[in-house]
Amino acid sequence: MQNGNNNQKHISLNLNTRGIGQSPTLAINEQCRKLQKKGRTVYRLGLGQSPFPVPVPVVEALKMHAHEKDYLPVAGLQSLRKAVAQFHRKKDNVDINANHVLIGPGSKELLFLLQLVFYGDIVLPTPCWVSYAPQAQIIGRKIKYIHTTYKNKWRLTPAQLRTFLKKENDHFRPRLLVLNYPSNPDGLTYSADDLEKIAKIARQHELVVLSDEIYGQLHHAGKHVSIARFYPEGTIISSGISKWCGAGGWRLGTFAFPPAFDWLLYAMASVASETYTSVCAPIQYAAVRAFVGGIVIERYLWHVRRILAGIGFCSAKILKNAGVKVHAPVGGFYLFPDFSNFADKLKKRKITTGAALCHKLLKDTGVAILPGASFQRPPHELTARIAYVNFDGAHALAQSETIPLDHPLPENFCADSAPATIEAIQKIADWIKN
Amino acid sequence: MQNGNNNQKHISLNLNTRGIGQSPTLAINEQCRKLQKKGRTVYRLGLGQSPFPVPVPVVEALKMHAHEKDYLPVAGLQSLRKAVAQFHRKKDNVDINANHVLIGPGSKELLFLLQLVFYGDIVLPTPCWVSYAPQAQIIGRKIKYIHTTYKNKWRLTPAQLRTFLKKENDHFRPRLLVLNYPSNPDGLTYSADDLEKIAKIARQHELVVLSDEIYGQLHHAGKHVSIARFYPEGTIISSGISKWCGAGGWRLGTFAFPPAFDWLLYAMASVASETYTSVCAPIQYAAVRAFVGGIVIERYLWHVRRILAGIGFCSAKILKNAGVKVHAPVGGFYLFPDFSNFADKLKKRKITTGAALCHKLLKDTGVAILPGASFQRPPHELTARIAYVNFDGAHALAQSETIPLDHPLPENFCADSAPATIEAIQKIADWIKN
Repeated sequence: MQNGNNNQKHISLNLNTRGIGQSPTLAINEQCRKLQKKGRTVYRLGLGQSPFPVPVPVVEALKMHAHEKDYLPVAGLQSLRKAVAQFHRKKDNVDINANHVLIGPGSKELLFLLQLVFYGDIVLPTPCWVSYAPQAQIIGRKIKYIHTTYKNKWRLTPAQLRTFLKKENDHFRPRLLVLNYPSNPDGLTYSADDLEKIAKIARQHELVVLSDEIYGQLHHAGKHVSIARFYPEGTIISSGISKWCGAGGWRLGTFAFPPAFDWLLYAMASVASETYTSVCAPIQYAAVRAFVGGIVIERYLWHVRRILAGIGFCSAKILKNAGVKVHAPVGGFYLFPDFSNFADKLKKRKITTGAALCHKLLKDTGVAILPGASFQRPPHELTARIAYVNFDGAHALAQSETIPLDHPLPENFCADSAPATIEAIQKIADWIKN
Repeated sequence: MQNGNNNQKHISLNLNTRGIGQSPTLAINEQCRKLQKKGRTVYRLGLGQSPFPVPVPVVEALKMHAHEKDYLPVAGLQSLRKAVAQFHRKKDNVDINANHVLIGPGSKELLFLLQLVFYGDIVLPTPCWVSYAPQAQIIGRKIKYIHTTYKNKWRLTPAQLRTFLKKENDHFRPRLLVLNYPSNPDGLTYSADDLEKIAKIARQHELVVLSDEIYGQLHHAGKHVSIARFYPEGTIISSGISKWCGAGGWRLGTFAFPPAFDWLLYAMASVASETYTSVCAPIQYAAVRAFVGGIVIERYLWHVRRILAGIGFCSAKILKNAGVKVHAPVGGFYLFPDFSNFADKLKKRKITTGAALCHKLLKDTGVAILPGASFQRPPHELTARIAYVNFDGAHALAQSETIPLDHPLPENFCADSAPATIEAIQKIADWIKN
């Protein structure tokens, strides 16, 4: 969909929303569709969607509850809130009460409501997920960026946070610190040690921490640790079924609040009751099944993790061998390569920004990836996000299921299960060397 | 859920959202639940939810598509946009193109986005639906009320609109005029003649008309007329599956725009891509079936209309016989009685506001209805909304299906099919006379 604001005519639009266009991840998807219509082969490494099917028991639960048609309570179905609290207690070892869980149509929508009701600055370590900043712009909030580095594995360091807060010289200024790990766009995460140190600083300054753990269950070793372990009184855990349960299109996200943040939960529920009302009833009933979990879903998760780890490792290796700076991912399904080693070569090809790099790459090779600027990195930085999910997840799962979980995946697994992914990564490697 | 703002502590909330509490319709629902827990018999005439099940073919379609998990295009599934456009062409005789249809998680959410992106005043004839005004408050928009009268069947008259615009003395000020018919809260609608006259004035002032026709297919005689017939270039038609299709809890609403409003549609889609992303995929596939319609759904609709007309007529008659001023409904499932004939009597009981009336009525009789003030009527007006839907819709449908559609319903149908509704209305009549 085009942005209609370019029409030269008098229109009366809220200036906060004028010209924001579409979310870049959705926009690149439509760009790919157009190229494909022209007959081009396109490798879609742009949109970060789980390639795996929703686990069978969860789909069955949706069918069972297809007739449910009542408006559910605005904060969510009580049995679902209980299941989510239980999930966090079991998986993350944090004490969450069902009455402090809020269900929304995607964690993106919940984050928008949080930014809308919380009157304070948004503190974003970059690279960060594409939608945090546009949401702040729509609402009119101030954003403070803290740029992380390749060397530090794109993580906010305790020292950086301390320096930032010191410079601000406004001790109890209301602030929302957004952490996302395992991370979109870089596939990396925090160590328990780092989280403990960040927690200590957050406590000193009474920061509200929005801990976006939507990829938590996709930590490739199943070893996700939440900052709520160290800062339970100030952390909101964001999760949902879009990533680990493959149900992005179902639109269900969850926030788990500490008891002291009832005022935030209530304010968000109030706005929810005047906007989306409540989340789709049949989906909420089905999500209970997902969060309750059990052996079938655990087995699904372990296969998914093993596949994502394998393909991520192969992909990173190809890029590294070509001389690209990139960290192999430890969770989720993204790579965030830094092409600065090729800056001179690229400059000769008149490529001096991440956006130009991605544009030319797509034109030359049909490979679609998103520039670092979409994740709030400086425009001239030659970084980009690769979502290595253009493979048939059902097929890869079926393949993986033939191999015992305590065996390693065979060497040819990636090429067999994700041929278009490996081909696309190889194309990037070849293109950058030219 | 309580409003947490009363906690006496420092919190940092957006003042536009501080203290808004919950939507009154949802709040009364939770109040009823509490009374029932105490063992009281409660008659829930507060929440306006269709009592009828979702038609079988639509539930079957949801089951068929339970596995769909992809993020769908932000504006909606193309086949659904086509079905909605076709629906409006067939049902409302207006020329809508699929590319000008926007799908959202409820028409309430779409209206919120519209108010957010459109920079202009909101013009609301009252009584009006509960959520229009709080949405404007959250966003920070100016609301201009035009109070209608019992005598004019709670309808905005062309003369009133002309006078209002003249007084404003600002010809092309950007304005969003919200019309809702058949109406929540009064069950009444506009004549084609009135709509034509209003359209003429709207055209002169280039008003954006948001025509909320969510109850259009529940016009009891199946004779709904849209203002888009007379003002196609400036009317956005709001609809969805919550009311005529009984699927409120599924959360799917639709906006149909005129071609000249692409700038509004694009701006709304942009904000959608940063908030709810897209509507639940399985629900969109199922909604295609609903909008495509056909004989099974038409038959369902005719039975639903006949039942609602019958119970509405009975209920109004009981109130009229008791001396209450009320118009029998012509669409939807609401009555908006005016108890001013009993003002003196009520004053002796220390009841001088609509809110006090509803509060005392609930306490004395267990009947829950909402005061006119919830619909932006003056606080001291003794009006209230009755949602006459506390009956078993599946049972009523089954009863109605035994009687040919060209026969009248038997005299005892209401008492047999909606005993608690008739009992509750009788309780109101008895209570007011005391």
